Formats: sequence, C-alpha cells, structure tokens
Amino acid sequence: WARAVRGLLLDVSGVLYDSGSDGGVPIAGSVEAVRRIKASGLKLQFCTNETQATREGFVKKLQAMGFDISVAEVTAPAPAACRILKERSLRPHLLVHNDLVPEFAEIDKTNPNCVVIGDAAENFTYANLNEAFRVLIGMEKPVLISLGKGRYYKETDGLKLDVGAYMKALEYACDAQAEVVGKPAKMFFESALAEMGVPPQQAIMIGDDIVNDVGGAQQCGMRALQVRTGKYRPCDENHPHVKPDAYVNNLAEAVDIILQQL
Amino acid sequence: WARAVRGLLLDVSGVLYDSGSDGGVPIAGSVEAVRRIKASGLKLQFCTNETQATREGFVKKLQAMGFDISVAEVTAPAPAACRILKERSLRPHLLVHNDLVPEFAEIDKTNPNCVVIGDAAENFTYANLNEAFRVLIGMEKPVLISLGKGRYYKETDGLKLDVGAYMKALEYACDAQAEVVGKPAKMFFESALAEMGVPPQQAIMIGDDIVNDVGGAQQCGMRALQVRTGKYRPCDENHPHVKPDAYVNNLAEAVDIILQQL
Repeated sequence: WARAVRGLLLDVSGVLYDSGSDGGVPIAGSVEAVRRIKASGLKLQFCTNETQATREGFVKKLQAMGFDISVAEVTAPAPAACRILKERSLRPHLLVHNDLVPEFAEIDKTNPNCVVIGDAAENFTYANLNEAFRVLIGMEKPVLISLGKGRYYKETDGLKLDVGAYMKALEYACDAQAEVVGKPAKMFFESALAEMGVPPQQAIMIGDDIVNDVGGAQQCGMRALQVRTGKYRPCDENHPHVKPDAYVNNLAEAVDIILQQL
Repeated sequence: WARAVRGLLLDVSGVLYDSGSDGGVPIAGSVEAVRRIKASGLKLQFCTNETQATREGFVKKLQAMGFDISVAEVTAPAPAACRILKERSLRPHLLVHNDLVPEFAEIDKTNPNCVVIGDAAENFTYANLNEAFRVLIGMEKPVLISLGKGRYYKETDGLKLDVGAYMKALEYACDAQAEVVGKPAKMFFESALAEMGVPPQQAIMIGDDIVNDVGGAQQCGMRALQVRTGKYRPCDENHPHVKPDAYVNNLAEAVDIILQQL
C-alpha cells in the first residue's frame, strides 16, 4: 500500500495532537514525522474538519506545539462553506464556535435564508438550538449546511458530541437533509488534492476516523490508513463497511513505512 | 365512527389546554366536556406524553384550571418507563426535566446501565448531553430509553425542539436505536386501555397529533379523532400515511357527537 506515493493528506486532531480544553498535546513522534515528510519532497496537505477556530488560530496553536504548518497547507470546512454561500447567494444564520465567526466576515448574514452549523461546543445551548430550528422551520424548504458530520471526538477531559449529532437533531425536527461540507464529502477531499496537485491514486490519507477519514478518502480513489491514536477504538477494526488499506500505530510509524518505499 | 363506544382516551396538551411558560390556558368547552364524559358512564383515561412534570404536578395544574382529573386516570411515559426499568433491572442515568425526577425516586440509579431521556428543556445543555453520551458509549450495547419522540412543540413564546430531536442526536452519536416509551408505542396505548378495562375496538382516542395520537391509536385497533386545536395544522389533513376516523373542531364537539350515539 505504500508504493507510488506523491502526496499525503493528514487529518490533524487525533493524528498530530490530542485536543483538549487546555489546547491539547502533540502525539509522540508527530512533530518530527511532519518534518520528515516535508524533507522527503512528498506533497503534504492538512485536511481537517476543525471548526472551533479560524485556520489562522488553528495553525498558530499547532506552530506553538512545534509543527511546521502554514495556513495555505490547511483544507478546512469553513472556507469551503463560504465558497458555497457566495455561489448560491445564501445568507447564513450561524450556529458555530465563537472563534470560527471571523471566517464568515465577508458573508452577508442579514435576513438569513439558511443555517450553517459547525462544532459550536459551548454554543450548543438549548436556546441556540431552538433559534436555529425556528430559522429552518420558517423556510419553505429548509437549507441546512453542516461543517462535517462527525459523531463525537475525544478531548483530554473526555468524549464530546460532534456537529453530526446536532445536525441530526435539526434534520429530524425539520424533516430535512443537511448538506455536509468537510470530510467525508468527496468535493472536500478533491479540493485538498487539487491544492497538492496530486491525483487520488498517488495520495494517501492518514486519519483516526474510520468513516470520515478512511471511508471518505477511499470513496475518492485514495488509499487510506487508520492510526491507532486519537478517537481510534479497537472495534473500528471490525467496521461493517470500511476497511483501511492498513493500520499503523501512529503517524510516525506510517511515515517510516512510506519513506522506506520512496 | 361514534357507535359502540365504551371508553375514551384523551390526549391532554392541545386537547384540554394550550401549554405555555405561564402554565397554559384551557381550550374553550374542554372543562365541561370532561365532566359530561364522566357523567355519561363512559370510561375515561388521559393519555399524555408530558414529561416536564410528575403526574401529581401535572394533575394539580389541570385541576387548578377546573378539570375533573386524578393521578390514577393519567397514563404518562415516566411511570411506564419505571415499569420497564424494574422488569429489566436497568439503572438509569436520567436526562430529564428537574420536575420529572421524583417519578424515578424508587429506581436504583447507581452505576447506570442505560440512559432515559425526556423533554429536559433547559436541562438540554451541552454538558448534560455529553454526559448522557459518555454513559451510552461506555456500554457494550447502548440502551437508550426515550420518553416520546416528538419533533417539536409550540409554547406561548415560540416553537421548541422536543425530546425526539435530542434522541436522534444520541442515536446517531452512539450508532444505536432508542426504545420509545409513550405515544405512538403500541404497549403504551395498551396499558392505557388496560387501565380502563376496555378493548381497543370499543375505545376512541382523541388527540391533536396526527402521527403520535391518531396513527398510534389506529395501529392498536382503536378509532381515532383529530381535533383542530393545539398543534393541529391544516396540512395534517393531507398526511401521506395517517387518516383519522373523523376530524372535530375541538373536544367539546367530539363529546357532543359521541354522547348522542349512546
């Protein structure tokens, strides 16, 4: 599985670092692994569903942990959503994390005709959910755009419900279907590949999420590895639909194997 | 449809009264209609999905509005859930309204092996939802018991997400299916009929919810009327799957017609 590779797509949370309310901590060997990928001449793009911060804020946090990463190397859902909002003249009601709001600075938000939901964390209050619901149910045909559809993720203080759970709540209440931006949407992986200029057959996705990282990337024709860090659980290895091209203990091990094949 | 009737099942919110943060107001003619049913010798049971209060609290509120109602006449989800918990030796983690907690006083809640979710309203916080999720995901096979599966309801200050939306969020996050106690579950209607000692063929359900009241009762072999009060909307009359045995403007009109046939 490690042959004829020209580019790597890396998930971030659970692969580079474990996130937490304290900011998070790098996963052993990952800082060095990113450096080794860059030194090898392989193309590299970070492909994240992170929506708790702007890319600028997110990159700063990772740089502070020692990672060699820049904003241009990050493919994230909010900028992808902004492109869609502009194309379709949609004016969003935002149910997102406070720190993500600046990504939507250029977007007209008056008199909303859609709802954009991200991982709003503490902003997922009863009042905010009722308000987003009322905006949706007031439309003839509710338009709900969801920045990812993750079930849950792990922080240093425990598991947290991810945006997908709240997306399902609103879908059910409005009898509508959300449009998902971010992994595992095919268009999202394709835009990350386009940034690297590498075709899917020559790229490997490395992630901790069996469905959104591994399944999504494979649907695009990429190979995909699951790391045994982050939200990985042993029962993922019996997933009924998705089988990674390989398991690796962590990013460092994946990079060892890939670089040996170059 | 009004012939050979021996018992009536009445939904409460939207049939007897309109609820609201101010407590609510009786629907015109309903107080008198309940009295006339009782005077007629028909059996009567109130069949509600109310989970924001104990039956005692709920009955007191209705009595204060002038209704002739007692706790023994009310079939509600929480006591039905308690029977299930006892039968199956389940110890619940509760995600319910504070005012409902006393219904579970007799139930062992140490070291939970299931989650019970009701219309928790202000208790649907980010922290409480994460906590319920962690209890579920920690089980080999998550057991989630939901007190109803309504999408939303109307209060005097606007529409609110109902328990069904939060049930869907947890179902998705845990990849599990909730067991629904309350309407439209067949067992729930059957236990209300058993309280009256009337077979379904001789009973009529009167409610404002086309799916949970009318559809659920018909599935049990009862006749069912939809009132044009409460959450009734004209588009309910074009429902793709459910057709009531009759529409009535309100409870008073239903009682007029039924008593004429006796």
